[in-house]
Amino acid sequence: MVEKSIELTGVSANSIEDAVKIALARAAVTIDGIRHVHVEDIAGAVDSGGVLHWRVRIRISFAVQDRLHE
Amino acid sequence: MVEKSIELTGVSANSIEDAVKIALARAAVTIDGIRHVHVEDIAGAVDSGGVLHWRVRIRISFAVQDRLHE
Amino acid sequence: MVEKSIELTGVSANSIEDAVKIALARAAVTIDGIRHVHVEDIAGAVDSGGVLHWRVRIRISFAVQDRLHE
Amino acid sequence: MVEKSIELTGVSANSIEDAVKIALARAAVTIDGIRHVHVEDIAGAVDSGGVLHWRVRIRISFAVQDRLHE
Amino acid sequence: MVEKSIELTGVSANSIEDAVKIALARAAVTIDGIRHVHVEDIAGAVDSGGVLHWRVRIRISFAVQDRLHE
Amino acid sequence: MVEKSIELTGVSANSIEDAVKIALARAAVTIDGIRHVHVEDIAGAVDSGGVLHWRVRIRISFAVQDRLHE
Amino acid sequence: MVEKSIELTGVSANSIEDAVKIALARAAVTIDGIRHVHVEDIAGAVDSGGVLHWRVRIRISFAVQDRLHE
Amino acid sequence: MVEKSIELTGVSANSIEDAVKIALARAAVTIDGIRHVHVEDIAGAVDSGGVLHWRVRIRISFAVQDRLHE
Amino acid sequence: MVEKSIELTGVSANSIEDAVKIALARAAVTIDGIRHVHVEDIAGAVDSGGVLHWRVRIRISFAVQDRLHE
Amino acid sequence: MVEKSIELTGVSANSIEDAVKIALARAAVTIDGIRHVHVEDIAGAVDSGGVLHWRVRIRISFAVQDRLHE
Amino acid sequence: MVEKSIELTGVSANSIEDAVKIALARAAVTIDGIRHVHVEDIAGAVDSGGVLHWRVRIRISFAVQDRLHE
Amino acid sequence: MVEKSIELTGVSANSIEDAVKIALARAAVTIDGIRHVHVEDIAGAVDSGGVLHWRVRIRISFAVQDRLHE
Repeated sequence: MVEKSIELTGVSANSIEDAVKIALARAAVTIDGIRHVHVEDIAGAVDSGGVLHWRVRIRISFAVQDRLHE
Repeated sequence: MVEKSIELTGVSANSIEDAVKIALARAAVTIDGIRHVHVEDIAGAVDSGGVLHWRVRIRISFAVQDRLHE
Repeated sequence: MVEKSIELTGVSANSIEDAVKIALARAAVTIDGIRHVHVEDIAGAVDSGGVLHWRVRIRISFAVQDRLHE
Repeated sequence: MVEKSIELTGVSANSIEDAVKIALARAAVTIDGIRHVHVEDIAGAVDSGGVLHWRVRIRISFAVQDRLHE
Repeated sequence: MVEKSIELTGVSANSIEDAVKIALARAAVTIDGIRHVHVEDIAGAVDSGGVLHWRVRIRISFAVQDRLHE
Repeated sequence: MVEKSIELTGVSANSIEDAVKIALARAAVTIDGIRHVHVEDIAGAVDSGGVLHWRVRIRISFAVQDRLHE
Repeated sequence: MVEKSIELTGVSANSIEDAVKIALARAAVTIDGIRHVHVEDIAGAVDSGGVLHWRVRIRISFAVQDRLHE
Repeated sequence: MVEKSIELTGVSANSIEDAVKIALARAAVTIDGIRHVHVEDIAGAVDSGGVLHWRVRIRISFAVQDRLHE
Repeated sequence: MVEKSIELTGVSANSIEDAVKIALARAAVTIDGIRHVHVEDIAGAVDSGGVLHWRVRIRISFAVQDRLHE
Repeated sequence: MVEKSIELTGVSANSIEDAVKIALARAAVTIDGIRHVHVEDIAGAVDSGGVLHWRVRIRISFAVQDRLHE
Repeated sequence: MVEKSIELTGVSANSIEDAVKIALARAAVTIDGIRHVHVEDIAGAVDSGGVLHWRVRIRISFAVQDRLHE
Repeated sequence: MVEKSIELTGVSANSIEDAVKIALARAAVTIDGIRHVHVEDIAGAVDSGGVLHWRVRIRISFAVQDRLHE
């Protein structure tokens, strides 16, 4: 079995967890079989002293299917 | 004074904070005097494009009592 | 343009996100134009097996104005 | 010249080297001109006190051809 | 919003900056909306005691459009 | 669920994989439910220009049962 | 003797070196005795597939004079 | 042979070396055959601008005997 | 509560501990409530094969009072 | 006692262990008393989707004898 | 084949690239067959708010010939 | 100007500082112009629960003279 990892950044105004979920949900539209997510980095955009949105970079892994776009 | 550190991974379907608390609560059943927790790593198990549960690895520190199991 | 980065630690009993917001809000009292926050470290103080408060160290960046306190 | 790097995880019951080779062989089905592999991480799945299979995460590099899927 | 990051290595005989630009220009042929580049690693190929070409590995980020090749 | 991680170093005259297996087998005598092993560090003792034995430091994870020795 | 370190990010459309110099020149307006600069991170803002400007984060060190703004 | 590593933090008002020795001496009460210590982190508690005590986190290694508490 | 961290380098001809203390003592002249010091880096200036002075970079943390110089 | 460390890269078509041994054997021709080897990095050259040879960078340590070539 | 790596720091008043080239050119006087250079660290000496010279630490690799000075 | 860095490990029964000095003094027998030492790693050999000797790995830098042994 071979798995591939890719890195995405999810953006959410609500929470760190939401930013992860948004990136995962988008990935799942075209990728089957994502099994694992790793949080690589947590940051945020700031405006007027508040967090405008959270930006969480994740790495997801999934089994390589018939195509291996590179 | 001597302190010991151990690493645990808490697992929670709700949030990163909950995963930390679950691991801490379990540790406190048999360990007295935990004073500090450090988040070492944040990951998750994924199913159907959603986060099935958060997995947060923590390191906790506590004063060594009369026993030092190793 | 020149930006400066400083490190703050926010403390909150509620959540990791809150600890970040508390540090940001305090910084914004005297600093204009904070645009970016990066989470450097997540820890917590523990009491009786529960998280007493979250301690989140952040680095914030902002454009250097007329003063550059160092 | 421009090269692209991607990360794959090879899985093998035999050895660390085999896990690398399996991932490389799969990648070579659709990617021409892989010249370099770097071992990023070595782990394993365990069952009954034995290593069920080795999981080796690698980064491979190759010259970008006419397509740059991203 | 969801962004994707990919890693490329640009190669230039002139300078570190040129190596970055060459990789970026190639990526922009097929990717819209690249907004950020991060230099991950700087190396070079050497011949006769001189730098034959600079090899700079970069990570670029861009908003995920309608396709998410993986 | 809560898991614990511990670090062991396996020593083998044969191979890196053997050093991991020796440490795992020893751990499995008293620990149930080890599911994951991560290779942290690879070194060796040397004698007469040959590798006397491989020393591989691993981190293993397992579900916390009724006891949490610390 | 006591020195202080601070982190600045210089921004330049021309080169990595220029971004460092711009940050240094700004710092020198109010700080005496800067002796050392360390490049911590190199990034860039991108537009239309080109580097709009380089962003170089540096750490500078200088002897603490009579004031220690913190 | 299998070795185990554990992490302790020694605390001493005198010196970094003393903090290491205090942690080692405590460990040796119940652990036989410690052969190696590695300094992982050096910190201190501060009061009135002086170092109240040094806190040095160490990792010690020792051969696993008949018991492997985990 | 919000804390700030700053980095200082203490210089002493005597010992690593002294270099830390010198930096701390200087900081305490103008900063109240320093509670924690972390050793980030240990180096030295060398002359005639001897250590001329130790240079220890530390990070200190303290509660933000009424002013937040940045 | 003073030891010196140097870095070598061993190259072998067979295995990671062989690459280490080849570098060690070469070093032992002119260096006495090598006692320890540490694996710093594992990579490979690739051709036609297979590993042409393993390249393992190691650091070896040995007691400084009468000469200290530098 | 066995390669050796050594670390040099090149110093140039002009640019980062020049500092690398100066160190490489010096090494090539006595070392044959340098094929690869890796930039490990970029720093500078500062005077009057300008960069007096760039200091770039590099690691170079080359095939071990008949001598292996250590 | 070109500088070279080498790594040595000093061994002393007394203190961390002594271990550095012992390595430096040995190096200065054959190397002129050492100007800088950086502590890379601190460890120790242990016997009977005490520190038998400190082992401190350092990197020293010096201007390359007429010879560049490699």
